Amino acid sequence: MKKADIIQEIKQKKSFLCTGLDTEMRKLPEHLPKNESGFLQFNKEIVAATAPHSVSYKINTAFYEQYGAEGWQWMEETLSYLPKNTFKIADAKRGDIGNTSTMYARAFFERMSFDAITVSPYMGEDSLRPFLEFEDKTIICLALTSNPGHKDFQLFSNSQERHLYQNVLETVSKWGNTDNLMFVAGGTHQDILKKVRSVVPEHFLLVPGIGAQGGSLSDVVEYAATPELGLIINSSRGIIYAGNDEQYAEKAGEAASKLASEMAGFVDQHLV
Amino acid sequence: MKKADIIQEIKQKKSFLCTGLDTEMRKLPEHLPKNESGFLQFNKEIVAATAPHSVSYKINTAFYEQYGAEGWQWMEETLSYLPKNTFKIADAKRGDIGNTSTMYARAFFERMSFDAITVSPYMGEDSLRPFLEFEDKTIICLALTSNPGHKDFQLFSNSQERHLYQNVLETVSKWGNTDNLMFVAGGTHQDILKKVRSVVPEHFLLVPGIGAQGGSLSDVVEYAATPELGLIINSSRGIIYAGNDEQYAEKAGEAASKLASEMAGFVDQHLV
Repeated sequence: MKKADIIQEIKQKKSFLCTGLDTEMRKLPEHLPKNESGFLQFNKEIVAATAPHSVSYKINTAFYEQYGAEGWQWMEETLSYLPKNTFKIADAKRGDIGNTSTMYARAFFERMSFDAITVSPYMGEDSLRPFLEFEDKTIICLALTSNPGHKDFQLFSNSQERHLYQNVLETVSKWGNTDNLMFVAGGTHQDILKKVRSVVPEHFLLVPGIGAQGGSLSDVVEYAATPELGLIINSSRGIIYAGNDEQYAEKAGEAASKLASEMAGFVDQHLV
Repeated sequence: MKKADIIQEIKQKKSFLCTGLDTEMRKLPEHLPKNESGFLQFNKEIVAATAPHSVSYKINTAFYEQYGAEGWQWMEETLSYLPKNTFKIADAKRGDIGNTSTMYARAFFERMSFDAITVSPYMGEDSLRPFLEFEDKTIICLALTSNPGHKDFQLFSNSQERHLYQNVLETVSKWGNTDNLMFVAGGTHQDILKKVRSVVPEHFLLVPGIGAQGGSLSDVVEYAATPELGLIINSSRGIIYAGNDEQYAEKAGEAASKLASEMAGFVDQHLV
């Protein structure tokens, strides 16, 4: 998927929402069986209910890997539920030496048909390049995250008072372009979003931390929107666990619709 | 597995070799079928042939994930071939926000019975803590790696000319102890090993880069051995693809034996 296709989808749905399918067996609504069939039914119905409002879906691999090889089957199956024009993200935080990263890229881009994968920059250029070599695929590189631990190393600063995350943004942005490269920037810190934008004024950002983690949508747009909007905002728990009874899918749809309706005005402002 | 158990195994086998099971379908010996059965037979025979000389095995998850959910099944199956007292490493380079890292820990420590997992420090303390909460399990944190890209961010330096990797070693070493925490340090840079040791004089290091990648065993020992030896040295391709015919397992065993025999003298020097 190219950036233009994502923008098209954003315009059409008047939403820049990514729904995160952080599915856990123990959190399934009571009436669903706690097994493969219940897990997959949940994902299928959540996707159907949220699809009108979601331009993107994010599958966090950890949630699936906790169930081992079976979990990987469910991830592959869940991927088949996602509508054709949505931007499909594997939130996998991968990254290893060159030939190993090529294998991760094959896993998520060829064996499965994800459009994008989140990656960790710690091992440098040859750990990210292999992902960038896949046509029409996108890497979403960790830059400044919203968890408490972002202070430990991402804010490590050099003699010019440049933080590591700034160096990551600056350096990694030279390896790709605005079509095949995005960054993860936490939505809970307004000043941080401003700083990220001062280094990468054009790239799309994947912003977690809205809703359950406390970030505000209008703040994120104010501090990080580009002329092309340039934002995909993720919500996971706040949508998929909006209800816990037989109406869970309807309630998830309503939660996604509510977020999307807040987004619609911003879409109109930026993309005509 | 505790450090004392690993040391016991090193003494007994007079080896500190970790054999990396970086298995690829296309590299199987010609006579083996290029399918699940060939793949698993290869791993089983390689393990049997190398076990007398290997104190540890490392499964690089990327090699298995490229085959999707099936690959995960093969990883689980391969784990069952590994001898009881060997130190079983998932080379997975994982790391995410707290509750997500807990799920990765469950995947590799509970669902599967790995003893250790490699992790990436970029997201900081709450991304590594969950792994440390599992008893008798070890995290092996990326510090200074041997790939060309290590220069990009690991050598980012602050105003006191401290590199990021030094900060990672210093900071992460406070979160764990020498029983539940090791570091990855590349074996191809002698001066780098010296620098790593100056920050973490006691922790075990997992050292890749010997053999195929050009590092020398005696250099690694000279610059990075502790009084307890403190080293696990990985070789993957150099061992498992030592032969490509019907004697491939025998040849892998010989390659492992050769490395182990070079190690024996160093074991005697350090561990009596």
